[in-house]
Amino acid sequence: MFLLMELFYSGMADGDMLVLDEEESGHCAKVLRHSAGDMISVIDGKGTLMECRIVSASPRRVEAEVLSRTAGWGGHPYDLQMAVCPTKNMDRYEWFAGKACEIGVDSIVPVTGEHSERKVMKPERVQRILLSSAKQSLKGKIPEILEGSSVKDYISSCRSREERLKLVACCFEDGSRPRISIREALEGMPAECRAVSVLIGPEGDFSTEEVRLAVECGFIPVHIGPSRLRTETAAIAAVMAVYSHFLL
Amino acid sequence: MFLLMELFYSGMADGDMLVLDEEESGHCAKVLRHSAGDMISVIDGKGTLMECRIVSASPRRVEAEVLSRTAGWGGHPYDLQMAVCPTKNMDRYEWFAGKACEIGVDSIVPVTGEHSERKVMKPERVQRILLSSAKQSLKGKIPEILEGSSVKDYISSCRSREERLKLVACCFEDGSRPRISIREALEGMPAECRAVSVLIGPEGDFSTEEVRLAVECGFIPVHIGPSRLRTETAAIAAVMAVYSHFLL
Repeated sequence: MFLLMELFYSGMADGDMLVLDEEESGHCAKVLRHSAGDMISVIDGKGTLMECRIVSASPRRVEAEVLSRTAGWGGHPYDLQMAVCPTKNMDRYEWFAGKACEIGVDSIVPVTGEHSERKVMKPERVQRILLSSAKQSLKGKIPEILEGSSVKDYISSCRSREERLKLVACCFEDGSRPRISIREALEGMPAECRAVSVLIGPEGDFSTEEVRLAVECGFIPVHIGPSRLRTETAAIAAVMAVYSHFLL
Repeated sequence: MFLLMELFYSGMADGDMLVLDEEESGHCAKVLRHSAGDMISVIDGKGTLMECRIVSASPRRVEAEVLSRTAGWGGHPYDLQMAVCPTKNMDRYEWFAGKACEIGVDSIVPVTGEHSERKVMKPERVQRILLSSAKQSLKGKIPEILEGSSVKDYISSCRSREERLKLVACCFEDGSRPRISIREALEGMPAECRAVSVLIGPEGDFSTEEVRLAVECGFIPVHIGPSRLRTETAAIAAVMAVYSHFLL
């Protein structure tokens, strides 16, 4: 049994004072009926947990004094960026985002492949899910959702990022470099490397050209075993593989 | 890019002839407009893929002749039983079942713990999800959903099953045996052992007594890392750990 912890988020901390936004204030003052003098726990979304005392509470604005801070709260000893093509059905992408946050991810990039059916994605709903998932799983840092781009532009932007292990999960061999399992790729990385980027393709997989460009830019082509996984399942499997490598 | 494969299920094969039930017949003859003479692929749900030629097709009953059989189709080289307490919200359990099938699981047992909020579960919806997930992920075998029982009865029924690696994922140390990570437990199993049972508790975790009984009956207490995972996420993480151990 774990203690159920009630957690708020504030992006507005200034020195020793912070303000909850309208939605968080409503939840704090109206739903949970907190008032001046009560202690609350607040995350700043960047990794810090703050223990606070409420100074004034109205249903639209709660102000609190920060009494203590814990940095790196609920953090993990790696940096993981997941570049994942949006799924046709957005529910499945939102599900991926929530679960990835629960397990441990740092940033998500919605990328569009040449075979992607969905070309646009509104990040707002995913952002809300990440916030609620971070609070639910007691993490001080909310994963960032970065601006979308094409798969090729994303790959090119990674070319110079040599400090990261870069993996592209594809369902076919492109001929230039044989695939290894994602686990082998992680086990082969230098011990000092703790930053990983994983690129996951759309329902129609990558084009041969995309994989070729990825290999040219330093991505290692990997597979996630023989099962035929959907985009969002492959993405979660990759998050689990990284988490398992560093933490299990 | 993979070929999208259209797959039917029939539990009614007799010699070289088979019949699709009403729902599958409707999908085959009405939605996809198949008729006599067409070739279709059918799984028997027990691991075999059958290539068939339709003999007669009406929207309520399709009969076909089996031309060839492939056993162990889409199978995996391990046997995994997941005994997972139903979640308060059934959507999350159904999601677990679908994803577990996609990755690779053999049987699911809904068990009720002393701290379970949900005591009953209707297996019908889960069964439908398992069927659709097996077809979607191209597996000949549909995971079985076994009859529910209490956590303690389930544990006791496993006492004599010494051929299996039995793991209980708990969020606390019960004192009798320190927890190791699920990965360490899998790596420590004898090479010839390919059967694993994993027990996952409810939102309120196991009772101390349940864990004590499990240890007494040969279960190894394991953790799934520092992240605070929901029941269904912990269950999927365990399925991934087993899949990864045998296949990555």
